[in-house]
Amino acid sequence: MKESIKKTRRTPALEALNEAHRLAVSPFVFQALCAMTDLGMMRALDEAGSEGLTLEALCEKSPCSDYAARSLLEVAVRFGVAQRSDEGRFSLTNTGIFFVNDLHVGINFRFTRDVCYEGLGGLTDSFRESRPAGLKVFGDWPTIYPGIQKLPGRAKESWFEFDHHYSDEAYPKALPLVFTDGIDSITDVGGNTGKWARSCCAWRSDIRVAVIDLPEQCETVDRVMAEEGLASRVTTHPMNVLSDQPFPKTGTKAWWMSQFLDCFSPSQIVSILKKAHAAMEDDAVLYILEPLIGRQPFPVADACLAAMSLYFTALANGTSRFYPYDEFEVFVEAAGFEIERVHDGLGMEHTLLVCRKKKA
Amino acid sequence: MKESIKKTRRTPALEALNEAHRLAVSPFVFQALCAMTDLGMMRALDEAGSEGLTLEALCEKSPCSDYAARSLLEVAVRFGVAQRSDEGRFSLTNTGIFFVNDLHVGINFRFTRDVCYEGLGGLTDSFRESRPAGLKVFGDWPTIYPGIQKLPGRAKESWFEFDHHYSDEAYPKALPLVFTDGIDSITDVGGNTGKWARSCCAWRSDIRVAVIDLPEQCETVDRVMAEEGLASRVTTHPMNVLSDQPFPKTGTKAWWMSQFLDCFSPSQIVSILKKAHAAMEDDAVLYILEPLIGRQPFPVADACLAAMSLYFTALANGTSRFYPYDEFEVFVEAAGFEIERVHDGLGMEHTLLVCRKKKA
Repeated sequence: MKESIKKTRRTPALEALNEAHRLAVSPFVFQALCAMTDLGMMRALDEAGSEGLTLEALCEKSPCSDYAARSLLEVAVRFGVAQRSDEGRFSLTNTGIFFVNDLHVGINFRFTRDVCYEGLGGLTDSFRESRPAGLKVFGDWPTIYPGIQKLPGRAKESWFEFDHHYSDEAYPKALPLVFTDGIDSITDVGGNTGKWARSCCAWRSDIRVAVIDLPEQCETVDRVMAEEGLASRVTTHPMNVLSDQPFPKTGTKAWWMSQFLDCFSPSQIVSILKKAHAAMEDDAVLYILEPLIGRQPFPVADACLAAMSLYFTALANGTSRFYPYDEFEVFVEAAGFEIERVHDGLGMEHTLLVCRKKKA
Repeated sequence: MKESIKKTRRTPALEALNEAHRLAVSPFVFQALCAMTDLGMMRALDEAGSEGLTLEALCEKSPCSDYAARSLLEVAVRFGVAQRSDEGRFSLTNTGIFFVNDLHVGINFRFTRDVCYEGLGGLTDSFRESRPAGLKVFGDWPTIYPGIQKLPGRAKESWFEFDHHYSDEAYPKALPLVFTDGIDSITDVGGNTGKWARSCCAWRSDIRVAVIDLPEQCETVDRVMAEEGLASRVTTHPMNVLSDQPFPKTGTKAWWMSQFLDCFSPSQIVSILKKAHAAMEDDAVLYILEPLIGRQPFPVADACLAAMSLYFTALANGTSRFYPYDEFEVFVEAAGFEIERVHDGLGMEHTLLVCRKKKA
C-alpha cells in the first residue's frame, strides 16, 4: 500500500480533478463498454487491428446503428479505449485490446455486469442493514447461496464462470502442497458440492475425505460421491458451522477450508477456527485457501479484489469480505494457530496459508 | 482529440492492462464512493484534513460500522481516493478532496447516481430499440419529459440540480450577447416552462418574446406569465415542432433555441432548423445554446459530456445526444445557415452559436 500512497500523494491538482470527474461519471463509461460489447463493436474493432475501421465500415461489420456507433465511439475515444486516426479510422488502444482479450479482465467484467451492477445500487443499505440489500434484483433470499441455481441466464453463467476460474484453477496447484509426507486423509470444512473432495480422490487413490457442511450440501455430496463410486472414501458430517455444536474429531492430519471463511464476519471466522482447533489433532495441519488483499502479484489485482469484495456486502450475505492478509492473520492467531508457510499465486489469485496449532 | 490519441497510443502495456482491469470493476468503485458519501465517511475524512483519522475515529465521527469503514477504505485507498499513513491514519488524496468539494463533480456525481445509474443498465436495449429502455426504473413513459415531475425524491432533486446548473448559469452570459444593436424581440423555439422568456423580460423592459412549443408547455408559459404580469410581452404559439406545420412568421429579429436541439435526432434537427429558416426574416439571427463536445475548456469536460450524452439514449428519449461541434455544424449548414460567431464557456459548459441565413 505504501507504493500507492507515494503515487497518489504526488498526483498534481489538475490530474486529480480530472480523475474526480472521471470517477463521477464512470457508470456511463462502464455501460458504454457493455453496449459496445453487446452490439459487436468491440469484436469488429479488435478484428480490424491497428488499421482500424471507418465509422461506416464499423456499422456494416456489426449490428449497430450510426447513432450507437457515434455515441459510443465518442466515449471510447475520450476515455482511452479506442482512438481515431487523422483519416477518421477507429481502432482499439492498448487498453481496449486488453479489455477485449484478457481472460481475467473479461471474467471480472462479465461478473460485474451480469451479477453485480444493478444490485450494487443497494450497497449503502446493505451496510446499514447488515444484509445483501442488492440481492432483491434476483430474488427474495436471505443470502445469494440458495439462489445461485435460480439466477437468470446471463447472471448464472457469469457467476459460475467467475467461481470456476477463481476456485478451480487453484486446486491443481494446491493438491501437491497439501498431500505431502504420507498425508492420506483430509477434513474439508465447508465442502459445498464436493468439488475439492472429488479433486482429492482423483489426485491419489488412497486419499479419504471428511466433509463438514450444512445438511443440504452433505446430501448433495453423498449423492454425487455415490454416483461416482467414491462413497466409501468420502464421509459427510452434516452441521451448521455457526451452531454451538463442536466439529467432529475426524482424526485426519490435514484440515481444509477453501474460499469458505470469506463468507463470514471476523467474529464468525474466529469462532469457526476455534472449533477446528478443538477438533484437530495437535500435529494436524490447517490449510486455508483464500484470495487475500495485499498478496496479489500486481497492485491492480489487490485493488480489484478490494473492489469486488463489495459483492459479498451488496449481493452475497451483507457481512463478509475478501479480507486483507494482515487482518486474516489476526483471526488465525486469535484462534490459537500460527501461520507456518504462505504460498501465493495459486490459480487466479489465491493464497494458501499453512497453519499449525501454536505450541502451548 | 489529437492530443488524447497521442497520449493513449503511448500507454505502455502494463498500464493499459491495469486500466482495462479498473474499467472492468468500475461500478464497484463508483458505488463505494456512493456509500462513503451516504454513510458520512467522505465528510468526516474531508473535515479531518491532511491529519486524517484512524479507523476507530472515523467510525466514531460517522454513522458507519467497522465493517463498512474497512471495506470501503480498502477500495478508496487502492483507487487513489484516500490514503493511509504509516501510522494508520486515513485522509483524502487530492482526487478525494476534489470529489467531495468540486461543485461540478458533485452535480455530475449526483445526477449519475440518482438519475442514471440503474437505468443505464438498459443502454444496449435502448440503442437496439431506439427508445429509452432504462426509463422503466422510474415509470412507464415514452420519454422522460412527461415524467420529470413524478421522479422519486432524490432523482428529481438531482435532475433539477443538474438542469439548473447546466442551463440557467448560461443565461446571464447569453443575454448581453443576444440583445445587441436594438434587438427587442425574440422567438424562443422549445420555450418549455418559460425560463428564458422570463430572463429576457427581466433583462430589459422593452423586450417581447414569442414562445413556440407543445400545447401543454404553452399553457404553462401562459399561466406563469399571467401570474407575473408579463402576459402582454410573452405570446405563445402551440405546435409540435416535428409536425408538418410551418413555424409562425413572428417577425422577430432574433430566434433562440436553448438546450433544445440535443433532444432530437440529426434528421429531426435539420428539419426543425429548416422550418426556422423558412419562418425567419432574411436578416434575423438564430442563436443556438448547446453543450457541444469538443468545445469544452478541458479534455475531461469533453469526455464527461460524451459520457453523459448516454443519458439521452438510456433514459431521456433513446434517439438524441450531446452532439460534437463538427457534427452540429453540418446540421446547421444543411438547413441553410452559416455559423457567424461561436461563444464558448457560457455557464458550466455551453456554447452559443450565432447563425445567419446563407446568402443566396
